[in-house]
Amino acid sequence: MELGLLYSGGKDSTLAALLLEEFYDVTLLTAHFGISDDWKHARETADAAGFDFERLECDPKVAEDAVDRIREDGFPRNGIQLVHQHALERLAAREFDAIADGTRRDDRVPTVSRAQAQSLEDRHGVDYIAPLSGFGRSAVDRLVESRLDVIVGPSEEIDRADYEAELRTLLAEEDGPGAIGECFPDHDQTYVTQVR
Amino acid sequence: MELGLLYSGGKDSTLAALLLEEFYDVTLLTAHFGISDDWKHARETADAAGFDFERLECDPKVAEDAVDRIREDGFPRNGIQLVHQHALERLAAREFDAIADGTRRDDRVPTVSRAQAQSLEDRHGVDYIAPLSGFGRSAVDRLVESRLDVIVGPSEEIDRADYEAELRTLLAEEDGPGAIGECFPDHDQTYVTQVR
Repeated sequence: MELGLLYSGGKDSTLAALLLEEFYDVTLLTAHFGISDDWKHARETADAAGFDFERLECDPKVAEDAVDRIREDGFPRNGIQLVHQHALERLAAREFDAIADGTRRDDRVPTVSRAQAQSLEDRHGVDYIAPLSGFGRSAVDRLVESRLDVIVGPSEEIDRADYEAELRTLLAEEDGPGAIGECFPDHDQTYVTQVR
Repeated sequence: MELGLLYSGGKDSTLAALLLEEFYDVTLLTAHFGISDDWKHARETADAAGFDFERLECDPKVAEDAVDRIREDGFPRNGIQLVHQHALERLAAREFDAIADGTRRDDRVPTVSRAQAQSLEDRHGVDYIAPLSGFGRSAVDRLVESRLDVIVGPSEEIDRADYEAELRTLLAEEDGPGAIGECFPDHDQTYVTQVR
């Protein structure tokens, strides 16, 4: 069975890929709005881990809407949620038997409710799987430690390809670099360099 | 890392074991109240699938309480939930790094909420994992078809070792065999005979 996994190059989506590869032919897809080349970092990790990789072309209008929302809110949560849902819709429209993402049990964003999952499946005739949604933070951390080599650091210094990178770039282009610090709280990101 | 998985011999908990075996040393444990020997069916499947197996001794008083509740309600849901929570507490008190069960995204019972999961983890210093909670019914069915040989049939004819078997036995002992039909709706169970 062919499965497409929404992929950032970070620890969660890499772990999700490892959990699924025993059961599916997994292709990693990184959402891409054409704003920056950050998707290339995800391709490097995908190559290192031995997975097929594709870009998932998304609608730049959605990135604009997300940045408007983030600017309005003063925090990124709802904007990122908007982008994640759009990316899942795009992924579901492709020719996979199943689609998946790396959302965890304790994630505040992005989240996919049971009703949203069912709706995706019914409308697109595809299985939606969140393989990490039954894993808490501590379980994920222990698995990461046992299987992945990661770089951890502040979002602005880590080369990964989650939505945040392009949304930050877009916000800085429109409002100046200072806007990033106003809307995105400091938090550490991970970038996977090696799968053991 | 050592993981103990609550095991019935059915398709969901067998699939959960297959998902986790890549990352953990998995032991399958079947909850047992000393009422019947149905746990032996789970041991057969565990042997066929090549997993370590243990019985998980549970408190017969909880089975009594569950049957009282089922009799009172006229349906089994709340009684089964009671037993599942008790079994998870017993399992969490053992010396595993992580514990798990086979609950699925679309299960109505048993369910383990995010708050219950966190509470189990905090009180017992153990990771609780529900590896199938991100899989819907259709995804599970397709994985079962690709990996497991199963027997499907009405609960009363299928030799498996979920809580229902002992609760049914207990209810029949106390109220006569007719009580089973009054409290347990007809539904098909699966019993795994082979893992491919």
